[in-house]
Amino acid sequence: MQIVDFVGSIAAFLTTASFVPQALHTFRTKDVRGISLGMYSAFTLGVALWLVYGILMGAWPIIIANLITTSLAASILVMKLRYHEGE
Amino acid sequence: MQIVDFVGSIAAFLTTASFVPQALHTFRTKDVRGISLGMYSAFTLGVALWLVYGILMGAWPIIIANLITTSLAASILVMKLRYHEGE
Repeated sequence: MQIVDFVGSIAAFLTTASFVPQALHTFRTKDVRGISLGMYSAFTLGVALWLVYGILMGAWPIIIANLITTSLAASILVMKLRYHEGE
Repeated sequence: MQIVDFVGSIAAFLTTASFVPQALHTFRTKDVRGISLGMYSAFTLGVALWLVYGILMGAWPIIIANLITTSLAASILVMKLRYHEGE
């Protein structure tokens, strides 16, 4: 494996996996005041389009990474919308 | 421009720009309790590595997008660490 592929793989793992602690934190605390609705609306749509891009390109690493990130970002967005009611 | 390039461009714009409302929201409210330190630590390191990947590949769109995202994610991480003291 070349150094560039290694760096890209670690980068992809970190940016995808980073949403796991945020989703867990939000699920546990139900504190969504500090989370931006604008960010999660734009980000969820953005990663969903990265998923479409991966499908159009037939690129499995892009499909898998963005399928996971879309699910996590969408779950945080849903929690932001739902828990917001109690504020 | 092919449809795949169009989808990729919109996706890149949204995932990069989405951190602007989060950075502004955090700067204004100083409410960082709902923000996961684990997420912003892993995410900032991840996009910084995407930046290194872009430099190694000589790919300007990857360099520019991740330079912006790294700056925004790092600023949110710094606010999380700084404003945390007052909680």
